[in-house]
Amino acid sequence: MNPITMQLVADKYIRLALEEDISSEDVSTNAVMPGYKKGEVQLIGKEAGLLAGLPVFERVFTLLDPDTQVELYVEDGQAVQAGQLLAKITGDVRVLLSGERTALNYLQRLSGIATYTRAVAKLLEGTKTRLLDTRKTTPCMRIFEKYAVRVGGGGNHRYNLSDGVLLKDNHIDAAGGVKGAVLAARAYAPFVRKIEVEVENLEMVQQAVEAGADIIMLDNMTAEQMAEAIRLIDGRAQTECSGNMTIENIQTITKLGVDYVSSGALTHSAPILDISLKHLKVLE
Amino acid sequence: MNPITMQLVADKYIRLALEEDISSEDVSTNAVMPGYKKGEVQLIGKEAGLLAGLPVFERVFTLLDPDTQVELYVEDGQAVQAGQLLAKITGDVRVLLSGERTALNYLQRLSGIATYTRAVAKLLEGTKTRLLDTRKTTPCMRIFEKYAVRVGGGGNHRYNLSDGVLLKDNHIDAAGGVKGAVLAARAYAPFVRKIEVEVENLEMVQQAVEAGADIIMLDNMTAEQMAEAIRLIDGRAQTECSGNMTIENIQTITKLGVDYVSSGALTHSAPILDISLKHLKVLE
Amino acid sequence: MNPITMQLVADKYIRLALEEDISSEDVSTNAVMPGYKKGEVQLIGKEAGLLAGLPVFERVFTLLDPDTQVELYVEDGQAVQAGQLLAKITGDVRVLLSGERTALNYLQRLSGIATYTRAVAKLLEGTKTRLLDTRKTTPCMRIFEKYAVRVGGGGNHRYNLSDGVLLKDNHIDAAGGVKGAVLAARAYAPFVRKIEVEVENLEMVQQAVEAGADIIMLDNMTAEQMAEAIRLIDGRAQTECSGNMTIENIQTITKLGVDYVSSGALTHSAPILDISLKHLKVLE
Amino acid sequence: MNPITMQLVADKYIRLALEEDISSEDVSTNAVMPGYKKGEVQLIGKEAGLLAGLPVFERVFTLLDPDTQVELYVEDGQAVQAGQLLAKITGDVRVLLSGERTALNYLQRLSGIATYTRAVAKLLEGTKTRLLDTRKTTPCMRIFEKYAVRVGGGGNHRYNLSDGVLLKDNHIDAAGGVKGAVLAARAYAPFVRKIEVEVENLEMVQQAVEAGADIIMLDNMTAEQMAEAIRLIDGRAQTECSGNMTIENIQTITKLGVDYVSSGALTHSAPILDISLKHLKVLE
Amino acid sequence: MNPITMQLVADKYIRLALEEDISSEDVSTNAVMPGYKKGEVQLIGKEAGLLAGLPVFERVFTLLDPDTQVELYVEDGQAVQAGQLLAKITGDVRVLLSGERTALNYLQRLSGIATYTRAVAKLLEGTKTRLLDTRKTTPCMRIFEKYAVRVGGGGNHRYNLSDGVLLKDNHIDAAGGVKGAVLAARAYAPFVRKIEVEVENLEMVQQAVEAGADIIMLDNMTAEQMAEAIRLIDGRAQTECSGNMTIENIQTITKLGVDYVSSGALTHSAPILDISLKHLKVLE
Amino acid sequence: MNPITMQLVADKYIRLALEEDISSEDVSTNAVMPGYKKGEVQLIGKEAGLLAGLPVFERVFTLLDPDTQVELYVEDGQAVQAGQLLAKITGDVRVLLSGERTALNYLQRLSGIATYTRAVAKLLEGTKTRLLDTRKTTPCMRIFEKYAVRVGGGGNHRYNLSDGVLLKDNHIDAAGGVKGAVLAARAYAPFVRKIEVEVENLEMVQQAVEAGADIIMLDNMTAEQMAEAIRLIDGRAQTECSGNMTIENIQTITKLGVDYVSSGALTHSAPILDISLKHLKVLE
Repeated sequence: MNPITMQLVADKYIRLALEEDISSEDVSTNAVMPGYKKGEVQLIGKEAGLLAGLPVFERVFTLLDPDTQVELYVEDGQAVQAGQLLAKITGDVRVLLSGERTALNYLQRLSGIATYTRAVAKLLEGTKTRLLDTRKTTPCMRIFEKYAVRVGGGGNHRYNLSDGVLLKDNHIDAAGGVKGAVLAARAYAPFVRKIEVEVENLEMVQQAVEAGADIIMLDNMTAEQMAEAIRLIDGRAQTECSGNMTIENIQTITKLGVDYVSSGALTHSAPILDISLKHLKVLE
Repeated sequence: MNPITMQLVADKYIRLALEEDISSEDVSTNAVMPGYKKGEVQLIGKEAGLLAGLPVFERVFTLLDPDTQVELYVEDGQAVQAGQLLAKITGDVRVLLSGERTALNYLQRLSGIATYTRAVAKLLEGTKTRLLDTRKTTPCMRIFEKYAVRVGGGGNHRYNLSDGVLLKDNHIDAAGGVKGAVLAARAYAPFVRKIEVEVENLEMVQQAVEAGADIIMLDNMTAEQMAEAIRLIDGRAQTECSGNMTIENIQTITKLGVDYVSSGALTHSAPILDISLKHLKVLE
Repeated sequence: MNPITMQLVADKYIRLALEEDISSEDVSTNAVMPGYKKGEVQLIGKEAGLLAGLPVFERVFTLLDPDTQVELYVEDGQAVQAGQLLAKITGDVRVLLSGERTALNYLQRLSGIATYTRAVAKLLEGTKTRLLDTRKTTPCMRIFEKYAVRVGGGGNHRYNLSDGVLLKDNHIDAAGGVKGAVLAARAYAPFVRKIEVEVENLEMVQQAVEAGADIIMLDNMTAEQMAEAIRLIDGRAQTECSGNMTIENIQTITKLGVDYVSSGALTHSAPILDISLKHLKVLE
Repeated sequence: MNPITMQLVADKYIRLALEEDISSEDVSTNAVMPGYKKGEVQLIGKEAGLLAGLPVFERVFTLLDPDTQVELYVEDGQAVQAGQLLAKITGDVRVLLSGERTALNYLQRLSGIATYTRAVAKLLEGTKTRLLDTRKTTPCMRIFEKYAVRVGGGGNHRYNLSDGVLLKDNHIDAAGGVKGAVLAARAYAPFVRKIEVEVENLEMVQQAVEAGADIIMLDNMTAEQMAEAIRLIDGRAQTECSGNMTIENIQTITKLGVDYVSSGALTHSAPILDISLKHLKVLE
Repeated sequence: MNPITMQLVADKYIRLALEEDISSEDVSTNAVMPGYKKGEVQLIGKEAGLLAGLPVFERVFTLLDPDTQVELYVEDGQAVQAGQLLAKITGDVRVLLSGERTALNYLQRLSGIATYTRAVAKLLEGTKTRLLDTRKTTPCMRIFEKYAVRVGGGGNHRYNLSDGVLLKDNHIDAAGGVKGAVLAARAYAPFVRKIEVEVENLEMVQQAVEAGADIIMLDNMTAEQMAEAIRLIDGRAQTECSGNMTIENIQTITKLGVDYVSSGALTHSAPILDISLKHLKVLE
Repeated sequence: MNPITMQLVADKYIRLALEEDISSEDVSTNAVMPGYKKGEVQLIGKEAGLLAGLPVFERVFTLLDPDTQVELYVEDGQAVQAGQLLAKITGDVRVLLSGERTALNYLQRLSGIATYTRAVAKLLEGTKTRLLDTRKTTPCMRIFEKYAVRVGGGGNHRYNLSDGVLLKDNHIDAAGGVKGAVLAARAYAPFVRKIEVEVENLEMVQQAVEAGADIIMLDNMTAEQMAEAIRLIDGRAQTECSGNMTIENIQTITKLGVDYVSSGALTHSAPILDISLKHLKVLE
């Protein structure tokens, strides 16, 4: 993760997560370790998967104490095995104990997303279709989850409502139709943004093309409809196919030559990757 | 969710989640809807499950505009079906459009957790064993996720490091043994807190009992070990069985008469429940 | 200004501005007005110009006390004259006195920007060239100043570094050339964003076109160079002409048929429009 | 700028300004520079003027990365020429690129204010009259703009509503007259503050003197009125002349022997001083 | 307390105090009162004293729930007796229970300060000497404690380091002497502030007068020294006598005709006034 | 104080306290010390007592400037004498001057609390009864004041409403009786918390025991009632005696064999311990 993004954006959330876990003091740790002692602890994989979030894991400890040393034996994007030693963390024993859960909560979730994304992205290898995430992220986790998608080999759709135009069903209803929505967006949107519109049938595809949409998202269409839509669009806009992609239907989609496929499940339903901190040793 | 908790604790996160999604403006919405118009939109279930998080869903909209009306047809803890109309939201069309994703991101995740928790809790019905969550929550989501566990019929273990004493493997390593850890905690901990210790074998169980632990967590033991541990404890402490509970092994556990079983998966790996906002209508 | 943007983005700055002006109490006001009295005060133009920022002006008072009434006789985007009565503010006299300077500081500056923008935009009327602002805004004032530019008839370039790609001289130096920079951006940038590149000579123009830039900014070129550049681009990218536009040279530019002209002066050097609050009356 | 003020007051605004410009990531920079490389860039004057704000300029970069080195060849208060090399900044290329605009936005505006203030202060040289700023500063910029005024040779009037008593027209209206206002202030105001009152005619001057005002501000009076007012005051209070000072009328004012003249234009209408960052070099 | 000060300054601290007391939820209250019920509770004095802080007491409850009604039977500055009914609070029972302690912590402390201040101020009645507080306030309580001093009949010295000049022993050491310190302050300080200097002997008094100090603080002098100092000053500066005033020595001081006497004990050592919330009734 | 608690919890308040004291700049210090000079100053006790808060005292200075050196000659929990040299602080003279008051405000108050707590704790020496604090702390000072109680030899009752269950008179009224309240708490409260109930007579004691309360607080009972209550409880719950303990009555209490006695006065009414910073020397 870019260090400026870490500083200006991520730190705020990491700090809140620590405050969520320590509202006055870590009673258990302070009971068994009343003063400074140096120690080390090991980060160990408990199942096979793809790692993501090591800089965030590290940041949890260095936010608590900048003198904490995190020696990494792997890096983000690398596949790891159950039982593999991933890192050694050295520092104030109290910091190792108090930061453990928050650091793992980030690392496990981001690694889970990267692992799942990689699995889906594999299904698209060798095709022109690229995998994208969505805004269906966990609240206060977007900066982290979109990073994990990239680590897993997916691409990022827009970051939020401020940096992209995507006219969905409810916008089209509000504007009174595809054409009105696209024209309104062209008139309003800062010129550096592309305009994407979500359509549900061929008539809407036709309107979107005519109104000059840059990207057309085909939502909940059958394979036949999508094929027809892509013929109709004929290169005049990029195409995105949205949601509910399964291992079964994905080959249909990739054969169609759609440019992008987006999946909310990457961020909202990937299970975590199990990783743990073990074998704490007091060094002095 | 208690309104004071909402005000003092939850609002801060909900607001951050909104700011995460709107860093300057909602370009798409402002393009199609340049001024105030009143509208309504429907909240519709897309799969069967248990709802949790309606007050949070509502709060997203009323934080954006206190005049937004959310008419609920169901309440938290209620089972819903695919296609069921759950609520109608009425207000400034721009608020309906701009709040949609953040509101759904909360509601889908919390409902997913409640649905999953209910399924696990069902397996424990009719036994003395109660289901608990853990601190393996998503960063910045703890207040919400622990609420969803309660809605789903689970209980909450401690909220964070400040309000309970749980001496785990690394604490015991730091203290040089079970007995030392428990005694240190008894000497240190504010007197309103119970002391729980995690043990991995019968020797540790014995030490925990002798040191006067209030709760003993049996971690990664076989059914036989657990049975023996419970005999050994003999009511002198409450018992908790931790992790990796599956439908297959759960009957073994419940037969043992353990007091509590805790599961990180409730909060870290439940898939979301699919719910959507549809059919926006401009009313005036 | 969109009420959601006001709530989620602008309020934070307005509140800070008030705290900047009142760090403990308004000594003068509390001296002369120890308790609640209802009063009214008039907002009066002191020179001719275009108004912008009335919702911000109003928000200053309603943040201090939601019961304050601001009766507007004009609206944003309207031309006003010296001596014209623009609004009447009614409420707690202490609120009228304590909010006066902060409210005017916003209104005067935003109206100054709108007035200046309108004057420049007028020079482009009847041509295809549209006027844009830049990121040369006053720190902590961007959301307001870009709004004022729109009120004055200009358009907004990207909002910040996160929502658009603009490869400038230093990026090109970092990437080792125009082509490398554009290709890197195409590979990296979230797909909803257009890629703009700043060029200084015809060779760079050629490279930008070949690399597939969406927008090409012609920086510090002579009229002849720009004409040649536009021929070279030949509709394969949008064109933007940057900076130092004067009344003298603007006709040259507009004749060239460039798509956009951007000007930092709109936000960094417009003088304020003089407006004042007068004739406070205690009503009861 | 005093380092304690920087730490406790200014940092908050600088950080907000950076967050305003980078809400998720700097897309352009991250595209062309995916990892750490050391680089340098030059700060170069583009027009003649007086510099102010170098510590703020530097702070923008060291907030992003404390390892950034800023080698200054000039200091605040020094006159510079177009084309002059002012500083060299060395560090992570991403920090140089991402901090550029925010750092320049501060430096250009503060230098513009210092340049303008110096020009006005020159007109008062050799007289007893001292130049002061006002509270007509840009919201969230006061700590910086008042600093720039001092660098330019002006003095600071009160910082905000909490640290000085200035009874203006609306306060006098609220209090029912000059005398009432001054007496109320004497009774109320913490004893370390002087009491200043704004008057518009000779009768009010008389009342202000009699009520024991420490400073009397002569607002919108003719030269004759001011002369008469100063005779009337006769050293019993300090005198301040407010606003609308031009090169034409300033000699009249200085001849009158008024103690202070205050000008809002110093902070609300000074154009920026053009300065840029150029010639980025990747060093390794 | 002025409502603008409440909004812009006090609310931030009150909110923090509530968050300090409720980091996740009020477990006891939520256990006994799972949903909304309307109730009332009585505020009752438990010892005689002077009340201060009722608006803060009320604000605690209305911050938790704006619908809470606080019916006051007394007001700030009024003497109350043990057993006296002071107010009735009506609203959501959960709000009454959760806000109780924080509301009382403010009210008891502020009333303690007001009670103590009144007792000291009484000793000065009929003399020209006025009682002042100091900056020896409890951290994060200054806005409240200085208010309580005023309610008790004392005056406020400067609010903080930014709104007054007081040159103390360490400043004088840093400046190399009284004269240097005062002259430096005259040259530097914004013109609306008076300059006060702390002196310990007659030589320093002489220097302070000559350097033109506005106020001279006589620190730790004997009555004879003070008398001599006041003769020496002879009306050319206001005089303040600092600290360690007791009922025994106060008559000496007031006889001397010193203008002000300041006392840190008002805010740092006043015991609280005992007040409690009793007789909660559930109304529906 | 634990460094993690300092970082995550205490720093926020210390920073606020500094901002409370310096809202724009330290005028006095900046006047006499316009640039960096190294200096030292001594921390000297002015009366005998027990020190607490040295890490907080130090943190005030290192927050202002991490290069400040604080050489401590004593540590928290140590008894000191009037005139004793406690520490020497070396660093930027401006930091020494600007941090002085805030640092002392913390140190004096915390040392006052520790001194007072030690005096009370002494009365309990040799008995089984332990001294506890309460939630009657100064708003925004709890993390500091509870620390000072521990330094003085007292123990901490629950930290806040979220980490313990204490059913007081108003909760019992809300629940309709002791039994209902305790049972509701047992059903609701996270299982790591003990349940305490406050009782006022023997009937309530009986109900509390029967309902299974873990701790029973005897409130405002006579010695005879308490003796009877303890007989009745007979070890089935821990016992706490609350409030109004005086040197006179304490022997009665300790003879009764109550487990805990809690006292609000420790934090709400202890006078400060007088300590000062003197003898500033400019070193270079």
